[in-house]
Formats: sequence, structure tokens, C-alpha cells
Amino acid sequence: MFAHNKRLQYTVRVSEPNPGLANLMLEQFGGPQGELAAAMRYFTQGLAEDDPGRKDMLLDIATEELSHLEVIGTIIAMLNKGAKGRLAEAIDQEAEAYRALQGAGNDSHVTHILYGGGPALINSAGQLWNAGYIDSIGEPTADLRSNIAAEARAKIVYERLINVTTDPGIKDALAFLMTREVAHQRSFERALYSMTDNFPPGKLPPVPQYANLYINTSQGPGDMRGPWNQGEPWEYVDDREEQLDVDGGGGSATVELDGTSADAVAAMADRLASDPTSEPLTGLDLGVGAPKQRDGEAV
Amino acid sequence: MFAHNKRLQYTVRVSEPNPGLANLMLEQFGGPQGELAAAMRYFTQGLAEDDPGRKDMLLDIATEELSHLEVIGTIIAMLNKGAKGRLAEAIDQEAEAYRALQGAGNDSHVTHILYGGGPALINSAGQLWNAGYIDSIGEPTADLRSNIAAEARAKIVYERLINVTTDPGIKDALAFLMTREVAHQRSFERALYSMTDNFPPGKLPPVPQYANLYINTSQGPGDMRGPWNQGEPWEYVDDREEQLDVDGGGGSATVELDGTSADAVAAMADRLASDPTSEPLTGLDLGVGAPKQRDGEAV
Amino acid sequence: MFAHNKRLQYTVRVSEPNPGLANLMLEQFGGPQGELAAAMRYFTQGLAEDDPGRKDMLLDIATEELSHLEVIGTIIAMLNKGAKGRLAEAIDQEAEAYRALQGAGNDSHVTHILYGGGPALINSAGQLWNAGYIDSIGEPTADLRSNIAAEARAKIVYERLINVTTDPGIKDALAFLMTREVAHQRSFERALYSMTDNFPPGKLPPVPQYANLYINTSQGPGDMRGPWNQGEPWEYVDDREEQLDVDGGGGSATVELDGTSADAVAAMADRLASDPTSEPLTGLDLGVGAPKQRDGEAV
Amino acid sequence: MFAHNKRLQYTVRVSEPNPGLANLMLEQFGGPQGELAAAMRYFTQGLAEDDPGRKDMLLDIATEELSHLEVIGTIIAMLNKGAKGRLAEAIDQEAEAYRALQGAGNDSHVTHILYGGGPALINSAGQLWNAGYIDSIGEPTADLRSNIAAEARAKIVYERLINVTTDPGIKDALAFLMTREVAHQRSFERALYSMTDNFPPGKLPPVPQYANLYINTSQGPGDMRGPWNQGEPWEYVDDREEQLDVDGGGGSATVELDGTSADAVAAMADRLASDPTSEPLTGLDLGVGAPKQRDGEAV
Amino acid sequence: MFAHNKRLQYTVRVSEPNPGLANLMLEQFGGPQGELAAAMRYFTQGLAEDDPGRKDMLLDIATEELSHLEVIGTIIAMLNKGAKGRLAEAIDQEAEAYRALQGAGNDSHVTHILYGGGPALINSAGQLWNAGYIDSIGEPTADLRSNIAAEARAKIVYERLINVTTDPGIKDALAFLMTREVAHQRSFERALYSMTDNFPPGKLPPVPQYANLYINTSQGPGDMRGPWNQGEPWEYVDDREEQLDVDGGGGSATVELDGTSADAVAAMADRLASDPTSEPLTGLDLGVGAPKQRDGEAV
Amino acid sequence: MFAHNKRLQYTVRVSEPNPGLANLMLEQFGGPQGELAAAMRYFTQGLAEDDPGRKDMLLDIATEELSHLEVIGTIIAMLNKGAKGRLAEAIDQEAEAYRALQGAGNDSHVTHILYGGGPALINSAGQLWNAGYIDSIGEPTADLRSNIAAEARAKIVYERLINVTTDPGIKDALAFLMTREVAHQRSFERALYSMTDNFPPGKLPPVPQYANLYINTSQGPGDMRGPWNQGEPWEYVDDREEQLDVDGGGGSATVELDGTSADAVAAMADRLASDPTSEPLTGLDLGVGAPKQRDGEAV
Repeated sequence: MFAHNKRLQYTVRVSEPNPGLANLMLEQFGGPQGELAAAMRYFTQGLAEDDPGRKDMLLDIATEELSHLEVIGTIIAMLNKGAKGRLAEAIDQEAEAYRALQGAGNDSHVTHILYGGGPALINSAGQLWNAGYIDSIGEPTADLRSNIAAEARAKIVYERLINVTTDPGIKDALAFLMTREVAHQRSFERALYSMTDNFPPGKLPPVPQYANLYINTSQGPGDMRGPWNQGEPWEYVDDREEQLDVDGGGGSATVELDGTSADAVAAMADRLASDPTSEPLTGLDLGVGAPKQRDGEAV
Repeated sequence: MFAHNKRLQYTVRVSEPNPGLANLMLEQFGGPQGELAAAMRYFTQGLAEDDPGRKDMLLDIATEELSHLEVIGTIIAMLNKGAKGRLAEAIDQEAEAYRALQGAGNDSHVTHILYGGGPALINSAGQLWNAGYIDSIGEPTADLRSNIAAEARAKIVYERLINVTTDPGIKDALAFLMTREVAHQRSFERALYSMTDNFPPGKLPPVPQYANLYINTSQGPGDMRGPWNQGEPWEYVDDREEQLDVDGGGGSATVELDGTSADAVAAMADRLASDPTSEPLTGLDLGVGAPKQRDGEAV
Repeated sequence: MFAHNKRLQYTVRVSEPNPGLANLMLEQFGGPQGELAAAMRYFTQGLAEDDPGRKDMLLDIATEELSHLEVIGTIIAMLNKGAKGRLAEAIDQEAEAYRALQGAGNDSHVTHILYGGGPALINSAGQLWNAGYIDSIGEPTADLRSNIAAEARAKIVYERLINVTTDPGIKDALAFLMTREVAHQRSFERALYSMTDNFPPGKLPPVPQYANLYINTSQGPGDMRGPWNQGEPWEYVDDREEQLDVDGGGGSATVELDGTSADAVAAMADRLASDPTSEPLTGLDLGVGAPKQRDGEAV
Repeated sequence: MFAHNKRLQYTVRVSEPNPGLANLMLEQFGGPQGELAAAMRYFTQGLAEDDPGRKDMLLDIATEELSHLEVIGTIIAMLNKGAKGRLAEAIDQEAEAYRALQGAGNDSHVTHILYGGGPALINSAGQLWNAGYIDSIGEPTADLRSNIAAEARAKIVYERLINVTTDPGIKDALAFLMTREVAHQRSFERALYSMTDNFPPGKLPPVPQYANLYINTSQGPGDMRGPWNQGEPWEYVDDREEQLDVDGGGGSATVELDGTSADAVAAMADRLASDPTSEPLTGLDLGVGAPKQRDGEAV
Repeated sequence: MFAHNKRLQYTVRVSEPNPGLANLMLEQFGGPQGELAAAMRYFTQGLAEDDPGRKDMLLDIATEELSHLEVIGTIIAMLNKGAKGRLAEAIDQEAEAYRALQGAGNDSHVTHILYGGGPALINSAGQLWNAGYIDSIGEPTADLRSNIAAEARAKIVYERLINVTTDPGIKDALAFLMTREVAHQRSFERALYSMTDNFPPGKLPPVPQYANLYINTSQGPGDMRGPWNQGEPWEYVDDREEQLDVDGGGGSATVELDGTSADAVAAMADRLASDPTSEPLTGLDLGVGAPKQRDGEAV
Repeated sequence: MFAHNKRLQYTVRVSEPNPGLANLMLEQFGGPQGELAAAMRYFTQGLAEDDPGRKDMLLDIATEELSHLEVIGTIIAMLNKGAKGRLAEAIDQEAEAYRALQGAGNDSHVTHILYGGGPALINSAGQLWNAGYIDSIGEPTADLRSNIAAEARAKIVYERLINVTTDPGIKDALAFLMTREVAHQRSFERALYSMTDNFPPGKLPPVPQYANLYINTSQGPGDMRGPWNQGEPWEYVDDREEQLDVDGGGGSATVELDGTSADAVAAMADRLASDPTSEPLTGLDLGVGAPKQRDGEAV
């Protein structure tokens, strides 16, 4: 069960309202690499986890991410506070209010007209948060790798936000949040490697004859070799013909149909056959130049 | 530029139509861990990449994933072929056709009524593919970790599909596709570690005083210690009070407002003030039991 | 800041696995009327709220809804536990595993193939949760009404789930969750009516001449009168002509264009003019019967 | 059945084109609180309604909302008319056309490049309208509350749009539309309270021992009491321990598994066990500083 | 402005409830080829149209499609009526109610648990309707072609629904709706060809040297010639080398950067350079077999 | 199987970075009329196609569209290259970086903060690409018409992009891409008309008595006649009464319920009956003016 304390995990000091900056901050509130996605990623994994160590860790970090959602959301609320009050109370003349919305930059208009200045679960372009941002699949050897990657991405987006912010109080809070992603990445790395045999993920072994092929499908200027495709254990497949039909079965597709189904498929093919020898007049020909007259009979 | 050869990378042999199984296969065609997501993930990264080695590798693997999309899509087309023809040509009696749709299992009805039996870019529940499944952010130290995780997830989903398939030809093709995900994971690992200093991702360093805290936010039965929160470099923060306001600034949120904005916020607060001492009659009170009469004046 | 205790707010006792029932429960986990939507609805409102009473209440209830998300998610995890293990460890023969997935009912296959049996933020049809489910707009006289309605809806969905559940432990937990929605509705009602003048919402007054019209736009068999359109203050507008152009300005649409724009619009109109006197031959005419021959010149 | 008259319900007079303002107006055309959502909300409820009074009212208001969709869409078409013609006919130099798109403000560029200046079913940030905006659940004691809230929200969004508009003809039309939302709210309120016993919604009674608890989950600076949590009938639960496990069952989660399933779960746990006593080297350790060499054998 | 008559455009006679069939019918209510998409497609085009003939036609057909939405929605309401009442009033035992939901087939459970048996704006798989289904772009030479295609698709989906329906009253209504799509297709064809020079759409002419190339990008077994790639005016490009870099500029990509930007790009490249000569140990190597010990120093 | 050559189909020469223009180009990368939608539309159709001629053509054009996705994506990467490097390496002061983001125009901020300057599968407003943009239904007489329309739309969007671009290298590449859409439209037209009897699409014939009605549902100022509703074969239905209930069955809706279901429906109706004779006090009445006091008893 959750409990909440109204004190934040990190103090938020905003030096002045800035709806344009508020809008950029939405990236980490309702964006794909943001804190709701992080919290829900770990929380849903934690609910399904049976290993006591991982379960505890997932719930610890999920709970902290909810507290980060609160910090970043509070920054947004502070940055929007002035504009929110002015619009709601119609303090400004209409023209001034319109210019303020347009001049605030990027998409902050939607935050004010639709959401009334509150933090909304959208990214900085107004895209609604959706659960497709969460990629948990319920297998820890995969999910921990997903979590490591998610923390790396979130670290970078915070870094970019820091690079466009001048307000020192916000920079401090963002640096804190960025740092915590690094710490979480470390926890997930440790958890992954405290499982024996985490590679390949899952139970089924790869098929040996295909496991070490590197298939050079993109050729031409810029072809490169490096540890990702040379040295042990790689077998480098460069020949276009060898890249095809690697099982040697012909590279075609077949299905066995029963009689009725085969007849149905044949009837469909017959009904919809294209005639490669025709030279049809088409709608396009009719569309060039002056209209042609209809006369009851087709042409 | 792309070129295409009508021979498949792996031969598809389906022993009989099975629309229910076709529907499950959609998971790897238009699902979040499927081949379109993989191909587009690497292709978009490759277009933006400046490092020649990674660019080449990303385009190689993207192109191969498109060929896998073709293999899994072809399996789906073969599994649906009979039912597609029967419905299109209305071979069956209506009642029989209805029962066939219902009996095929899970959501295959939508594939037939809406998509006509063709492979559609939906997952096995009919959820439309969307680009939120792709988490590329344009920083290789993060994106390569995302790719490693994506390959791990795709490996697992193929493993699950293999576990519910009896058709030997399909099992073979799925095992091939599963194996290639393992090979790709290896390439991405090698590419990540051929960059010096890939951790922490990005340029900005973490804030030292927050980088090694493990904050035990979830407490109670099941609290655990392990390498993810004990030993070097962890500082374990267990005390509820110390978890709050880690910067010591008070844990509150503030913003400096100019006079007009401050007045607007005050006016808004005043207009919308809740009276904590009131004992209001509410709509809910009116909704219990018999209707109360309106009489022009409010009560 | 949030804290978590691994004890649940309500004990979950599931008498046996049932993936089909688990799937129905997703409605209140990742569905539009479910607990994530509730928690995020109140949490985002709370972050933006300036009135101390409402802010506290919103954070109290948001935090409780997160705990309900945990309860319903835990029910789902328990109901799926057996099937999850069997599929992951490939305990069953493939055919048996396939039949188990199909026989579990409704869409539970996607939970297992894609999400590995864990609770996912989807509804019972696999639709990804999205933030469009949250309708907060940052004005308490509207948002509290939205919250009242949301609690009413959630109460009903729990009622329906109770009506299809036989497991007594799950019924108990659902009844608890249902009851809490009723309590929350009461809190929101009280908060709404502890604001003076909460109707009409917002600041701008309605235009008097249009405020009391009831426009009978749907006529014919079934026309009814009742307190929603008769008695004080209603003016019932039945005449089709009077329903149109209520301002008496003609009911047309006009815009003043400068010369260059007017010319551009005229040029566009000219280029795209349809000729009402033509009797054109169309692509459709060509599509009926045998193909017509193209001969260089159009017909 | 529907009929249409080309005269509008309210005359639209736009004094000059303004693509930036057009874009803001999209909020009430294709946005979540807009007229399509309103029309479809009431129309779908009306189709399923059996009570003759409510059915008639729902169809009346749905039909009027379609007419409002027409009014707001017509305003958008008028505001965009000049820019639409200029872009389509390439009247301006490219650089001028580019600057015009950028200078129009907010997201109006997408309206012009993608939608050609026509009103599209998107909100002011370009987010596609989706049916998740509609929250009907087919129980009138809930749906009428949802409708009341929806009208309150739409009233506020119109108010905000009026506050940023200077064109008197548009302000008039928006004021009309805003006023009608107030009238509709009244109809829905009357319809709700003309049902006896509309609270609690639905049939199942709440569980008495949990119905009057107010659980103070958010504590710390800012804790408040008011009619939403004090006085009759509230029982205020402040103690953290009492908030947990309110049924006294222990607050844990259990499920009964049969032998095979229990074995499968145990096997899975064993395969994926994390070793809390390990001190694993991780990928992260490898990523710090210079690359480490691989030599066939792992380290 | 719209008006409504409670009599339907076509009488709906349903011989018995069938929630499974109701669910299939959702395809034409809230599915991508359904009536809402049709109505909104033509309505939004009509609002923006300046040509009086097309505007009138678009509004005529849009209004009729709304009436079709009403017919198909009414069919769904009738098919669900029994199940809706039974679930709402909890007439059945829980186990019986559960079996009824599961036995009704496909995804009808979501209609009942979430939407209470009413017609919802989802397709038969529960996918929420979204405005991405509408492809209007505000240029009649394109939009009319889109409308022709949309009518063709809707005709086919109705045909498939007829093929799985045995209820004669529903078959009649579906045949009516299917027929109207054919009539609408004819209107749109006529409107397209009553514009002079509708091909190529728009104003800008194609570049002559690329306009008649057919590029045989897919080669191998199954290569075919037909009127779509042979005869006048086609130039068939078969040679792989000629398919590339058709402008002869080299097929590379370049951009001119100023000095500061070029330096930034170089710095980024340097920071993120992959070392093709390295033989790095990777996380994957660590994941194979027994855990490796960390000892403060990296390996 | 696919192969890739690193040379582009068309050389990309960008004269200087321009993130605002890059953002507009996203329309044809990840927008609804863009190249991914085109490639996937034809590729999925091709996989399901049995006619050898159409299959080959669909795969040829799908493959070319992938190469176009590469060209447009490469343009975007070049236009963003400078800004990407500057933000990643934090070359600019924060204030300068912030102004650069805001000044770049439209929504390019999201490309940089979230996607790091790489081409993302979003449109120019940041809307995530989704598979609802693809309207294939697996019947060639419909799908070919959809493809014709899709090419027409794409041609127009390229035309608009050309109209706002001054960079000659980009204009050239866009003109090439635009031209290819025209060529593809021709191929699809030819393929459609090389099928005998492609109208009406599908197999079921229309119902003769409804096939030639033109129903004048939108009346009033602007009613027009033209070939789309006059002449052969149209029967113009102008009378409002005749438009209703065209089958003469009464225009009502009925369903036969068994006894238990009928009882359930009646019970539900009874429970939820609205009382048209009541004059209820409502929540709204309570909301006007000062709060009313609750006193245990309802009013």
C-alpha cells in the first residue's frame, strides 16, 4: 500500500513563470521516457514478480519514480502558475492574452486552453501518454535489460532539458532527477547479473547454424567491419545469393488446403484475376483534359 | 536504396490453415515486440547515425528485420488462406461461416471481417501498431542498450509462440527468427562496448551526493538486500524522514510571481475557495430516496 | 513524496487460477474506468491545485487509488500465476498449451503471449491505456463534477465484475474496491458544494436569450416532455424554422479576405470547379463488364 | 434519421483570416471536450437507452451538438480560407509561404500542410480525436453524471477561447455555444434527479464497514479537514498501520495452485532466481573507462 | 443545422439477441470502414469546400451516413438488449453470467463489462475509433478519390458481415446499407470527373524524366509484366545499378554546416566513436554461465 | 527478401540546417500520407495477394516506397544535423539553446529534446504514426482504389512541401518523390482496370430498389443538381417523409426477447425510470449562490 507525504523528495524553487519551458518539461511528465512510464514499468513488473529480491527492488524504484513524477509535475505547475491565473480570471485584454499564448513558444497553448495550466499526461508536442511506452513482457532476463535501457534514455532526456534551462533551481532539481536514473540503472544491472545464465534470455536455445551469422544485407559505400560482425564467433555472409533461403528449402511459401478451401481460393483468384495482356482505359485517362461524355452505354 | 527478391530468407511450410494460430502470430508482425518495430527502430537510428561502423550495422540489421517481417507475414497469409477464400466467395452457409469465425479462437474474427485475411499491422488483440513502440532517442549509448533489450524481448515472444505451435514447418521458421534475435543482440552488445566510456550514458556527470543512494521506499514484509542495494557503492536510506527532502531545502515548491500574476492567482484562489467549515447539502444527498421538489427558490 | 508498504490495503485470496477472469479484471487495471486513470486524474489535479483543502483531499484519494491499482493488479497476477509458469517453462505439450490459451476465454491469450502473464496497462480487449481517459481541465467547478462522475462509473464496472465472479475471495476484494468509490464520490460532492456559486462553472455568464431554450431537434414518435425540458425556466423550441439561425443573422458564414487572398481563393475555385452540366464518363463506368482498350488518345 | 439544413444554427461572421486562431478553435472541434465528443457521447447513449424520456432528451441534445460541430468547424474554415487558397495556388514566394506558416503561431502548420486548411478532427496540438474521450458505460445513474461533467468542462474551454479572441463575430458565436452547454447541463441534472434513488449508482450496496472511512493517505504539511472528510458520516483513519490491511486478513496475496502448476512456478522461480549474496560484475562496470578485451573465455 | 426524426431510415427487425453477432457489427459502427468514419469524412470535407455542387453533395451524403450510423447502432443495441438487462439486474448466477460472457464469442465481453451493452465507438476487437481513419486533405482531386475508395471498402465489409449473418431482418438492413455505399461511390465518381483535368491531382506537374519509369525493385521468381508496367508510357528499369541514384548525383547525402555546428558534430562523433579494432568484453559475455565477481576495480 | 545499398535512390543536397523545415518534412516520413504508410500499405497487400501480376507490382512499389522513406528521412537528418550536435555537446549557452529551440518554429523542439534530432515516426505535429493510417482490407477491387487515392494524397502533400521550401536541393528531391507518386497512381489504375468487372467491388449485388436513389438529406440555400445526383440512373428523393423508412416497415427497431430476458429488461427499466412529472431539486440548484446546510435529514 502507498502512503504520501506532502513534502517533496527534492525542493522545487522556480525563479519565474515560463509556460514555454513548462511545456518542454512535459517530456519527462507525460512523455515516453518520462516518470509515469518509469513508475508503471517497474510497478507492473513488481506485481508479477515472484523472486523476492527483484520484487522488493522493483517496488522501491517504482515508488521513487512516482515521487519524481511529483517533482517534475510540481515544476510544471510552478512555471505555469502566473499564466494560469491570468487566463482563468481574464486579467489581460483578449489581444494580449492571445499574444501571450502565441509567444510562450512551442505547444504551451494546449496546456492552457485545454488543461488550464495543470500538468497533463502528454509529451511536449501534446501526444497523449499511452501504455505502448511500456515494454515489460514478464521475463526478468528481458525486462531487466529493458529497464537498464529505459534508465539510460531518461538520463539523456534530462541532460537535454538541463542544457536548455537557465533557472538555477530547476537545473538543480533536474540534475537530481537525472542522477537518480543513473543510480537505478546500476541497481538493474546488478539485479540482471545476479541471475546465473541470463544470456540468451529465456529457455529455448538458439539454432546453432543460424546463431553466428552476420548477414551483410546493406552493401555499397560505407561497408564496415568491427567487433559486431568480425572475429569470433561471426560468420560473415556477404554473398547476395547465400543470404536468401538460408535453409535451402527454396525460399517459397506453401500451405496444404483441403478441397473445399482450395476451390474457394481458386474461385477467388479467378474472380479477381488481372489480365496482363489487356491495355485498359482507366479512370486516370478520363481525368486528363476535357470531360468525356457518358451516353448510357460504356465506351 | 532497397531491393527485393521474391525468395524468402527462410522457407515457409504450413501444414494446414489455422486462423487462430495466425492471429497469435500477429504479435510478431504488428505487435510491440514484432518485426516492424524492430526494422523501423534500427532504420531510423541508422539514418541519423554519423559513426560509420554503427550506421552500417544498423542498416544491415534493419534490412534483415524487414525480411523477417516478410517471413512472419507470409506465415500468417498461409494460415489464413483457406478461411479467406471461403469467406470472400461465401462458400459456406452463413451459420457455418459464423461458427467458423467464432470457433477459430481469440480475435481472428477481426482479421477476417476487417482485413480480409491479410496480415495487418495489429497485435494479436487487434491493437493498432503505433510508433510509441519505438524508443530511439538519438544517443547511441542509450539506443544500443534499447536495442539489446528489444532483441531480448523479441527472443522471448518467439519462444512463447514456439511453445504453443505444433506445425513443424512453422516451428522451424519461428526458431530461425528467434535465433536471429540472439545474433542481433550480440552485435549490439559488441557495438556498445566498442565505445569507450559508455557509462553513464551522455555527457553530464551525475551529482555525487545522490548517485549512490538506494532509497528503500517500499518497506514491510519482503524487504531484501542484494547487490542492487548493498555493498559498494550503495548508501542505503531506510529512514522515512531522510528519504524526504534530500536536499534539505524543505521539500516545498515555490515560484516568484510578478504583481499582476500574483493578483490573478489570488483572485482565482478567492473565487474557487472551498469553505472547510461548511456542511453543504450535495447532489448526492438529493439522490438518496424520493425526489425533492424544486420550487423556484433554492432550498 | 510516496512511500510503500508491501502489505496490501486489502487481503487478496484467490481460490484458483483463471486466466479468463484475470482478463476481465484488466478493465479496472488498465481500462478507462480503472484505477490508474483514477489515480492519475486526482494526482495531476492535486499538483495544480492551490486551494489547500482540495489539494489535500486530491492527494489523499490519488494515493488510495494507487493502492487499489495494486490490489486489482495483484488479483490479476494471482489468477495468471499457474498459466504463466506453465507457458514459460513449456510444461505442457504444444497442442495442450495452444488449447489452454484458446479455452481460457476472451482475450487472455495476449496477456500470456505478449505480457507473460503479468498485469498490463490494457483493458480487457487489449486496448492500450491512454491519457485521453483523463478529462481534467484545471477548473475545480468542472473537475469535481468529472471526479463525481468517474467514481460513479467505476462503481458500476466493479458491480458488473462482481456479477460474473464466483471466487469468494475476489468478490470480497472487489466489493471493498467498489465501496471505496462510493466513499470517494461523497468526498468530491462535499468538496464541490463547499465552494460558493459553483454553477455555472467558471466566470463568464451565459447569454440570457439562449440560456433557457430547449431545442426539440429530434422529433417524431417518442417525443417526450419532462423536467429536463418543461416547467421553469424552459422555453421549448419546437418549430424547425425557429431552431435555425437563432440569432437572426441569416445562418450563413462569411469572412473578409484581402485582395490577394480573395484572388487566390477564386483561382482555387476556378481550378477545381465542378461542372454541374457535364455528363462525365467515370472510372466506374469503365469498371463494369469487359475491359475497354486504351489507344494512346483518350476516348 | 437525420436531416440537414444548410443554414447554420448561429450565424458565423469572421472579420479576417487568422490561422493561428483557427488552430486554437480545433480544441472544440476535434479536441477531447469538443463537439464531436459531445455529439457521439449522447448519440451512443440514446441508441441504447430504453427510458423514453431520456432517449428523447439524449437524441435532442446529440443532434444539437452536431449542429454546434458545424458552427465551430465553419469558423475554422473561414479563419483558414485565405491561407488555404494561397498555399494551394502557390501565390506566395516559397520563403514568404514558409514564414507565413511559421508565423501563424502554434501548430497551424499541420492544418495547412496535411489537412489543406480544412477543419480536421484533431485538437489544437494535432492529437487525433479518439473514442477514449467518450466515457459512456450504459448505466444512466453514472452516464448522466458524466454528461453533467462534460458540459461543465466544455463551458470552461469555450470561456478560455473567448478570453483569447478579439474578433467580435467569433466571440458572439462562442458565447452562444458556451451558453448552450449551460442549458444542456441543466437538462442532464433534471434528468438525473427525476430518477428515484440515483445514489449510489447501480444496484449493489456498498459494504458498510468501508463506506464511511476517509483514509488520510497523504500526510504532512497541508493536512486539512473539511466537509469532505469530517463530520457525519466520516470515520477519519489517520494511523498508518490502520490504513493497511483494513480487512485484517494480513494484507498478503495468495492463490491455490494445483501440483503441476505449482511445479511450473517453482521451476520458473528456480531458473530466474537472483542471488542476493553475489557481487556480480555487470555491463555497467565494463562501460566505465577503456574497453576490456575479450579473449574467448569470459573473465 | 441538423434535425432528427426518431423513425429510422430503414426498419430494424432482430429475431433474437446475439451478443457475439453484435460485436461483429461494431466493425461498421466504430471501425475504420464504419459509418462514423464515413460521416465525418464527408462532413469535414463539406465544411471546407467552396464549390457549391460538391459542398451540397458532401453534406447530403454525410447526413445520410449519420443515419446509417443510427441504423447499425440500433441493430447492435437490439442484439445486446437481453444480455444487457440480465447482467445489470444480476438475473443470472455468477457462474452462469461468466459462462454467458465467455460463450458469446469473440470480444463481446468488453461491450458488456465496460460499455454496458451499448454500441461503443470501437471496432470488433475493441480498438478505439480514432481520427487517423479519416484521410481528407482538402484537395478535391485527391479527396474524391479517397471517398470512392472508402465506399468500396465499406461495401466489402458489409458483404462480409452479410456472409456470416443468418437473421433475415439483419441481413436485409445490411444489404440496404451495403447498397447505399454503391450509390455513394457513383456520386463521388461523377463528381470527380465533372472536374476538368483531375489528373494529376493538384497543380505542380511531374518531372518528365521520372514520370514514366517503372522500377522493378522486386525481382526473382514471380516477376511479371502487365499494363501496369509495360506498353506506353512505361520505361521499365530492371538493372539494379540504374535503379540507384537516378539523378546521377552520386546517391549520397550532404549538408553545409557552419563552423560552430561542424565542430559540434565532430565533437559528438569523437565522443561516441566506435572502435572497429576493439575486441570488447560485453555484458552478454558476463551473462553466460556463472556470475563473475566484482572487486572494486573493473576487470 | 530485402537487400540494401547505401547509395540513395536520389541524391540529397541540403544547403544549410533548418530544424523548422525538418519538422515539416516529417509529414512525409511519419505522417498519415507519408512513405512508411505507403510502403506498409503495399507490402501487407502484397504478402496476401494471390494474383501473380498484382503481387509483383505491389512488392515493386512497396520496395520503392521504402527507398523513398530513406530519402525523406535522410533530408530530415541533414536538416537537423547542426542543431543535434550543438544540443548534444551543449555548445551553446543554455539561454541561447532555449531560444534556438523556440525560434526554430513549429514543433521541432520535440524532435530535439525527445528524439535527439533523428527522424522519428511522427507527423509534423508530433502525432505518433499508427497503423490506422493503412486502410487495406484484402479485396483488390477496393484496395487498388485505396492505393490510387493514397498516391493522389501523397502527391498533394509533396506539392505543399515544395511550395514552402527554398532550398533547391530539397526542392529537387521532393519533386522527384512527388513525381513517383504520379507514376505509382498510374500503375494502380492500370491494375484495377485489368480486372474485368471491378464495379461494384466484391461479389454481392446491390439491392436494386435502393441502388439509384439520391437522397437529398441536406436542404436549404445551396441545394444543387449535377451529374452526381441528376440524369441516369438517379432517382432524386427530396421529400422528407419519403427519405424516412424507405422499406416501409415503420422505421422502428424491434427484437424478440425470451421471458427471462424480457423480465430483466423490464426490471432494469423500472429501476431506472425517469419520472416526467417530477420537479426535482438538483445539484445545480444547490450550486447557485450560498451553500445550503446539511442536517442529517435530506431537505
